[in-house]
Amino acid sequence: MLDPNTWFSEVAAADGAAFSLRISSKLHEEQSPYQHIEIYETEGFGNLMVIDGCTMLSTRDNFLYHEMMSHPALFTHPDPKRVCIIGGGDCGTLREVLKHPGVEQAVQIDIDERVTRLAEMFFPELTASNGDARAHLLFEDGVRWIQEADAGSLDIIIVDSTDPVGPAVGLFTSDFYAHCRRALGPGGILVQQSESPLYHMRILTEMHTAMRSAGFRDTRTLFFPQAIYPSGWWSATMAGTDLSLADFRVEDAARKTFDTLYYNAEIHRAALAQPEFFRRALAEV
Amino acid sequence: MLDPNTWFSEVAAADGAAFSLRISSKLHEEQSPYQHIEIYETEGFGNLMVIDGCTMLSTRDNFLYHEMMSHPALFTHPDPKRVCIIGGGDCGTLREVLKHPGVEQAVQIDIDERVTRLAEMFFPELTASNGDARAHLLFEDGVRWIQEADAGSLDIIIVDSTDPVGPAVGLFTSDFYAHCRRALGPGGILVQQSESPLYHMRILTEMHTAMRSAGFRDTRTLFFPQAIYPSGWWSATMAGTDLSLADFRVEDAARKTFDTLYYNAEIHRAALAQPEFFRRALAEV
Repeated sequence: MLDPNTWFSEVAAADGAAFSLRISSKLHEEQSPYQHIEIYETEGFGNLMVIDGCTMLSTRDNFLYHEMMSHPALFTHPDPKRVCIIGGGDCGTLREVLKHPGVEQAVQIDIDERVTRLAEMFFPELTASNGDARAHLLFEDGVRWIQEADAGSLDIIIVDSTDPVGPAVGLFTSDFYAHCRRALGPGGILVQQSESPLYHMRILTEMHTAMRSAGFRDTRTLFFPQAIYPSGWWSATMAGTDLSLADFRVEDAARKTFDTLYYNAEIHRAALAQPEFFRRALAEV
Repeated sequence: MLDPNTWFSEVAAADGAAFSLRISSKLHEEQSPYQHIEIYETEGFGNLMVIDGCTMLSTRDNFLYHEMMSHPALFTHPDPKRVCIIGGGDCGTLREVLKHPGVEQAVQIDIDERVTRLAEMFFPELTASNGDARAHLLFEDGVRWIQEADAGSLDIIIVDSTDPVGPAVGLFTSDFYAHCRRALGPGGILVQQSESPLYHMRILTEMHTAMRSAGFRDTRTLFFPQAIYPSGWWSATMAGTDLSLADFRVEDAARKTFDTLYYNAEIHRAALAQPEFFRRALAEV
């Protein structure tokens, strides 16, 4: 029924489910030093980047993920100036971070330069802010970079990585979170993509446990739709120590000086609401 | 890649996307007088009902839809006693409605009795409340039933139908909404499933327009995840005349006397939050 010559499919094997996009053409394919990258032109979702067989982003719906990985954390911190993004090579999260006029420095550390070079070619709208004087693009190991960062030198750490298998597995450990905590200054916030609430509750509860065991006193998951990711429902989890992650700069968010497609102050508050099944699972953490 | 012998796929043709579930076996298939109904056993989602090629419900994720089709409207009305459900033959929405102790009568009007008989066999948990003395199951045309209902005789009308093609098309018209409005008493609320915010904005804006042209003064969309529906992101739209649909009985929702898996007072508030792109599209209605 779905001809593999005209459809790209990602199978969520453990859940017996798959999501497919109809493709017009394959625009690019390469094996980088770190991963297998494909770019497709789709019929309904614009361009699509696939890494190691998993959908990473599409032109049509990446706004949901990129806005929710950045604005809630930045509007929760009282005055974020120093931001780092671990992963995020497509630069979509970086673009959202740079929309905040108070940000003085945004460092993106992705191990794979090819992701950024391909984003420049096939998702130019996401890399349009890369020339901003506040943006610094590094292509190296994000775990080591965080380990070597000066204590208290960051306000926000955004972990915008692939799933917790393969090269990204080191980004889902208590050890990594402890280094993040050391690198964060007062009011500092770590935020990490945390998979599907429907498919990956175990990853979510393990993440909360690991973040708390690394010394973060508050952890809080944000929920949002993401059509191209497994189950169409995704999450990001924030961790902080000396502020409440349930509160944010509501007035600033309501009067934000930049354009978004999904995020606003109401959506921020909404993303913090915990479904009953999630609240119960987390109560045991 | 996705062998049609082991995967059921629903294609959203206009959006070039598809969602698939891996099936263990086909449990049933029939042509009712109204539609083609299939029941599958899936590997990851329990049982699956498919009507005219479209996924209707799965054991695993139907709680999202059924809870959001019922509890927000019932906790918005000050004291809902008389509820009717147009469609909803699987009885999952009816089950949620009957959880409200104040409800005195819940009438379900589905044109196709076979849906209910198959739900009894393959989704028995959804039909477990059908013996409740307050429940009345009718198998007839819901449009005509509403036309003939006494004026002011209902507190809540829930339109739990298939998509606006085929037998359900008459449920998406201003004329139908006008009859609903006439049948509703003071504080009465109409709530209808309203498709995907990502794929079907035109249906959503047309629904708001038609509801308002039928005399409803307030209309408000609720957003929620639904993995098996196109895009994984779904909505229901409420219409009312003499109350604000942005407010609800927060204390009662917070102290609800029954169990849910998704809905709670926080989730209710969250579901009302409008994404930026939606707010802008609706501002033109």
